[in-house]
Amino acid sequence: MSGFVSFVSSGPGDPDLLTVKALKRLQEADVVLYDDLSSGPILDLARAGADLISVGKRAGRPSAKQEHVNQLLLDHAATGARVVRLKSGDAGIFGRLEEETTTLDAAGVPYEIIPGVTSASAAAAAAGIPLTRRLTARRVQFLTGADITGSLPEHLNWDALADASATTVIYMGKRTFPRLATELIARGLSPDTPALLAHGVSTADERLERFTIATLAAHLDGAESLTPALILYGPLAPGLG
Amino acid sequence: MSGFVSFVSSGPGDPDLLTVKALKRLQEADVVLYDDLSSGPILDLARAGADLISVGKRAGRPSAKQEHVNQLLLDHAATGARVVRLKSGDAGIFGRLEEETTTLDAAGVPYEIIPGVTSASAAAAAAGIPLTRRLTARRVQFLTGADITGSLPEHLNWDALADASATTVIYMGKRTFPRLATELIARGLSPDTPALLAHGVSTADERLERFTIATLAAHLDGAESLTPALILYGPLAPGLG
Repeated sequence: MSGFVSFVSSGPGDPDLLTVKALKRLQEADVVLYDDLSSGPILDLARAGADLISVGKRAGRPSAKQEHVNQLLLDHAATGARVVRLKSGDAGIFGRLEEETTTLDAAGVPYEIIPGVTSASAAAAAAGIPLTRRLTARRVQFLTGADITGSLPEHLNWDALADASATTVIYMGKRTFPRLATELIARGLSPDTPALLAHGVSTADERLERFTIATLAAHLDGAESLTPALILYGPLAPGLG
Repeated sequence: MSGFVSFVSSGPGDPDLLTVKALKRLQEADVVLYDDLSSGPILDLARAGADLISVGKRAGRPSAKQEHVNQLLLDHAATGARVVRLKSGDAGIFGRLEEETTTLDAAGVPYEIIPGVTSASAAAAAAGIPLTRRLTARRVQFLTGADITGSLPEHLNWDALADASATTVIYMGKRTFPRLATELIARGLSPDTPALLAHGVSTADERLERFTIATLAAHLDGAESLTPALILYGPLAPGLG
């Protein structure tokens, strides 16, 4: 008897930005495994009686617990349960999805992946900024600003990141942005390049602030930065109307 | 008396991949303006009695009709209607959103943008491929393969695109991929780099095919390519079960 695991993308935070499919899976779940980033209002949509289990991962911190999460997935699937593994944003984008699907593949546990709205799309929509623009931003790229130790990842492609004709979105990059911006400017990207700092996208705490990459770097330098945020920079349309 | 325009991202095609918010707006709409790419099953969810108006844009074709779409938005908003402007995928990603929001800004018509699931996320989820991988694909980028004339856009950032440690997704790029692949390989990207061709993502016609960039280029060279498709390449995880 084998259960089934649904990797459910929960979107940026607003329950109304769940997909219909994600909502259905929550409403049918026997067990929901969620990270600390997951929002309470989304967990409230799970079937009454479903086991809600926090697996305690946080963005930008080393996760000593991946094996533990993997084991929980296997254990609950082995009971025949309908298991929902909730992932914030889109599960395929900085969701550490592969670590878990590899475990299920090895054990022969069937699963599905339900895509969702990534935070970049939600932040851009809230700010009135298109991620691509017909002549000025034909490429959009997403990067994590923190590797497993919380540092700026090594071996970054600076030509890609210092490209004035792309929109760049940094996930979990508040702490490392001052260093990143210094490098970008040294490589020729204008310090006046528009930037957006987005906190709490799509939640009641949403806060969108406009900077340039230089003023944002100064703003974040040495600041406490415990709350997750998204940073966009590039030829951003006016927006924030 | 002013109406209100909701730019509603319709996701990749499956009505279950609409967000809850998008579904609500469709169910409240007086008028729905949609492109030819929009799927019938999604239009079926609009409020009974809503005017469904095709504005006839197609991917990869020059749109002589942008002014016409803009005028329709203004005219319907002026009647006080709740207008839904349906955009496939995520409205902010290759959705030509700015052309329309600029018009509304100038006319003082209020609007909102509802983000959605972009086709890249849905294709990757269907194939079991994470768009980012912790050590091997820390960057993901989206590019359009066709400018307004249908050609490969000029001034591409080849360092960014030939990066073996990024996942790249090409929207509307089937026709231009053979030329793109030639350039990528000339710039040092291995011809054996994994590639995925995804047709009809999340619909009944979904077809996912694995190639390398070299074999995909050969497959597409000279082929008729009227159906839209998405191309992924990079250090793609095994996936496809």
